[in-house]
Amino acid sequence: MSKITVYETTRFPNPARVRAALAEKNATDQVDFIEIDVMAAQHRTPEFYAINPMGTVPVLRTADGQFISESTAITEYIDHQFEGTPLTGRTAEERAEIHMMQRRAENLVLDAATSYFHHATPGLGPTLEINPCEQWGTIQKANAQRGLEYFDQHLQSRDFVAASQFSMADITLFYGLGFADFAKLEIPDSLVSLRAWRDTMSKRPSLGG
Amino acid sequence: MSKITVYETTRFPNPARVRAALAEKNATDQVDFIEIDVMAAQHRTPEFYAINPMGTVPVLRTADGQFISESTAITEYIDHQFEGTPLTGRTAEERAEIHMMQRRAENLVLDAATSYFHHATPGLGPTLEINPCEQWGTIQKANAQRGLEYFDQHLQSRDFVAASQFSMADITLFYGLGFADFAKLEIPDSLVSLRAWRDTMSKRPSLGG
Repeated sequence: MSKITVYETTRFPNPARVRAALAEKNATDQVDFIEIDVMAAQHRTPEFYAINPMGTVPVLRTADGQFISESTAITEYIDHQFEGTPLTGRTAEERAEIHMMQRRAENLVLDAATSYFHHATPGLGPTLEINPCEQWGTIQKANAQRGLEYFDQHLQSRDFVAASQFSMADITLFYGLGFADFAKLEIPDSLVSLRAWRDTMSKRPSLGG
Repeated sequence: MSKITVYETTRFPNPARVRAALAEKNATDQVDFIEIDVMAAQHRTPEFYAINPMGTVPVLRTADGQFISESTAITEYIDHQFEGTPLTGRTAEERAEIHMMQRRAENLVLDAATSYFHHATPGLGPTLEINPCEQWGTIQKANAQRGLEYFDQHLQSRDFVAASQFSMADITLFYGLGFADFAKLEIPDSLVSLRAWRDTMSKRPSLGG
């Protein structure tokens, strides 16, 4: 058994989700981090494709040497490997609601904003942006804007995104909003519940508070 | 506590995933099914949006009356609610690998084929297809074709998609291939490992064997 390793890119939203999950488990010190320079296309090298054929960060190498990609899958590993805040729920009902809201936070906010950025703006530049589809990016911009409204309404009566407890779904929405800012899809002032939730979350140590 | 209810649309791939998960648990008889007529836009009524704001099938109503959408989230509920074949893994390593491959089976096959169908073919017809984006559908067709090749290579050395055991990732790939057929994205004859895996899976009672 060797030390767990996380391949990440600083300031990118999906690696930040994994950092937050580890911080909630007080496990950051138990993991080695390796920086992948996406701007230098280091995620599109044979060496990186060997650990993740999808060419995406983050990737986690388990203590057994298995490579795991996809942020939800990595969070499942972290949640079951370490003590600390449960991130994926304990009961069937909690697990179902957290996974449902995790997917909505991805589809409606983080992934929608990411698709807008890569397809309908210059994104990471012409060398890295393969196959941009501007019409698709514009559709996803509108989806992200509707997603912000959906979560504002959702959070009018809740302190957390799912199952009345902090979970991976809060982490995903939080970094989704951060990426929306970066892509200049800012939260309208009128979405007061979403803004209030974000203020509260931003004070949480795992989320940089 | 009332009986669990599943809202589904016969012959659609995502509802079929939930039927297969229930069958693996021998739990089909413990669930009521309600048919949603998507071709009549029954998924876009106020009544249906009240149970799933995303307007998608399947939806599961838990014994407690909670509505769960998103096939992976529903499968988490079924896996933790019923005895029988574990569908999402037991250990941290198994859970991580199964969730990773579940997402790849979605992104590279089922969802890619679905996006091709809805965006680059007449799909469900002009009334139901909102905002089609042909260029995006064409990109997704190529992604699906690469996805079939990826899984053929993946299955050259494996009997199951993830963690050396039957799981939800097998169910997702199986119905992804079924939808690819329907969308006329057939598996090339050269992909012998993928075809052999599919033949084996098709004999499994939960998958219609």
